[in-house]
Amino acid sequence: MGKFFSVLQDYKKQVDRYIFEQLPKTHTIPEISNLYTMMRDYPSRSGKGLRPSILLIFCKAFGGNPEKAINTAAALELFQNWIVIHDDIEDGSELRRGLPALHVKYGMPLALNAGDALAGKMWEFLKNNRKIIGAETTLDVIEQFLIMYDQTTSGQHVELSWVQNHRWDLTYEDYFGMCRKKTAWYTCMTPAWTGALIAGADIRFRDIIFKFGMDLGVAFQIQDDVLNLIGDEKIYGKEIGGDLWEGKRTLITIELMKQASDSEKAFLKESLDMPRAEKKSSDMDKIMSMIERYGCIDKAMAVSIELATRAKTEFSHLDGSIDLSQREIILELIDFMINRKF
Amino acid sequence: MGKFFSVLQDYKKQVDRYIFEQLPKTHTIPEISNLYTMMRDYPSRSGKGLRPSILLIFCKAFGGNPEKAINTAAALELFQNWIVIHDDIEDGSELRRGLPALHVKYGMPLALNAGDALAGKMWEFLKNNRKIIGAETTLDVIEQFLIMYDQTTSGQHVELSWVQNHRWDLTYEDYFGMCRKKTAWYTCMTPAWTGALIAGADIRFRDIIFKFGMDLGVAFQIQDDVLNLIGDEKIYGKEIGGDLWEGKRTLITIELMKQASDSEKAFLKESLDMPRAEKKSSDMDKIMSMIERYGCIDKAMAVSIELATRAKTEFSHLDGSIDLSQREIILELIDFMINRKF
Repeated sequence: MGKFFSVLQDYKKQVDRYIFEQLPKTHTIPEISNLYTMMRDYPSRSGKGLRPSILLIFCKAFGGNPEKAINTAAALELFQNWIVIHDDIEDGSELRRGLPALHVKYGMPLALNAGDALAGKMWEFLKNNRKIIGAETTLDVIEQFLIMYDQTTSGQHVELSWVQNHRWDLTYEDYFGMCRKKTAWYTCMTPAWTGALIAGADIRFRDIIFKFGMDLGVAFQIQDDVLNLIGDEKIYGKEIGGDLWEGKRTLITIELMKQASDSEKAFLKESLDMPRAEKKSSDMDKIMSMIERYGCIDKAMAVSIELATRAKTEFSHLDGSIDLSQREIILELIDFMINRKF
Repeated sequence: MGKFFSVLQDYKKQVDRYIFEQLPKTHTIPEISNLYTMMRDYPSRSGKGLRPSILLIFCKAFGGNPEKAINTAAALELFQNWIVIHDDIEDGSELRRGLPALHVKYGMPLALNAGDALAGKMWEFLKNNRKIIGAETTLDVIEQFLIMYDQTTSGQHVELSWVQNHRWDLTYEDYFGMCRKKTAWYTCMTPAWTGALIAGADIRFRDIIFKFGMDLGVAFQIQDDVLNLIGDEKIYGKEIGGDLWEGKRTLITIELMKQASDSEKAFLKESLDMPRAEKKSSDMDKIMSMIERYGCIDKAMAVSIELATRAKTEFSHLDGSIDLSQREIILELIDFMINRKF
């Protein structure tokens, strides 16, 4: 993975530099300076910089100049940052990248508004494309972000509805559909295709990248669900077991429901759907050992590997059309997505 | 006011038609259909349609064709709608346009996300300009929305901070500064200037419209603060006295603090800054009668009239440069802003 990691680090540095140069720092009104501090908070926590790097790698793979895509990559990084500010509020999450979530630190009202303010900066970064890639391509890129935006908010709505409506009659297909929307679009499809678009890639490659992006994105999310239960909190940066406390529907809990006996199922539904504040630590431990006993994590990991393998096959259809050195990096990326610890 | 009202009604109809044609209706995934229902909720409640009408009136005033600005006007109407979904969550408001606020109806997590989804549609409406006014002007309009977006979220942050930090050491100037950001930009400045921009107005008119927009926008907000205390709930559509329950800083409460005795001030601070759930109805009634006794509402209305008069003078600098019939309508609009009951 040597090559992929050094590219990731290098691109992350460039994207972060752009973000922190562009985000406002201070204002004569002290309250607004405080808003700026809040807007810089999540971006300054050590994220992976994965999504902007995918964008830049695909831009280069199709013969483009990544320097012309830095601000678009930065906009993608802001998307991830503002949307998780809102997600953390919606899910009642407590930790983000190893530190208290923004609404825990500053209160819900200011955090919600800071998420909105940061979303504005994302569109501003995209508007800055005007002088770099011209008005028409600027609007093409904005169009890609609009599709991603629509898919992500739809996926988030589906997931929140499942929790709110106590839905457990869910199949693998339901989960895949939700994940493609909630995760795969903004993690893989939009980064890869937008990078290709800025490079001037032919529209006929879009379908290949779409299939690749959907499979890899879901594989990424499954690995996230796994890490959420058995990861190392210091490396992973989120609360271990947080998904159980938040009652999330994951491939792992769906598999558990499938295998559990009727009496176990009744216990699971009651304890997972309880409001977070009323949940008991001992119940969560009990659920965790049931997950292990039924081999749900191994099952999820097998699905994740299968999807990543399929993504590799889909990706191979680009052979001959993309730069060889970038091809190698993308193959490393695919392995990283399902083997990562953070 | 005959002319202004008939124009308002006509434009509102056109803008609403565009909004409801463009917003998605149903989806094969039932949860997403439910998201679409939520996105259509606030827009379907009878708003005034004031901001989009200002945009269309100014477009026509500068010789433009309002038909080419309908989707931009609709985007502005969506801005108002998604931002109040988030505001209602941040402020803990219960009523919006005479009905329960979206988060009261569907729960906070889904409402927050629906606000985000609706914001996406606002940018989509603006992107639709591409085929109507060309890529360059489309980006000029997006730029105006970005400025408005930045100002509004900054103003909202200031107001929320005052409440959260129990700030009462506020002057009229503090209030004007907050209101210009929170209200005047999206209610007056951006509608008027964006309409003019689409019509191809010369940049030298921007300064005049800026001064006009700032004064008129603050006058509008003061009238809103007044209606919040003494309006007719059925016509006004928000909870009467809601600002007191939410501990808002308005010209009226700032004036009250200025006039109150030390012991009254101590009572006011304690009771206004209490969490909503702990507030007592009898305390709010007591505050209301203090407001009346000290003539705070009359004082606020006088300021509002002064600002509207100044807006008229600023507006008169456009005489000779704009269409006469629109000039007349805008003068009626100014009067409406400070005399309205809704």
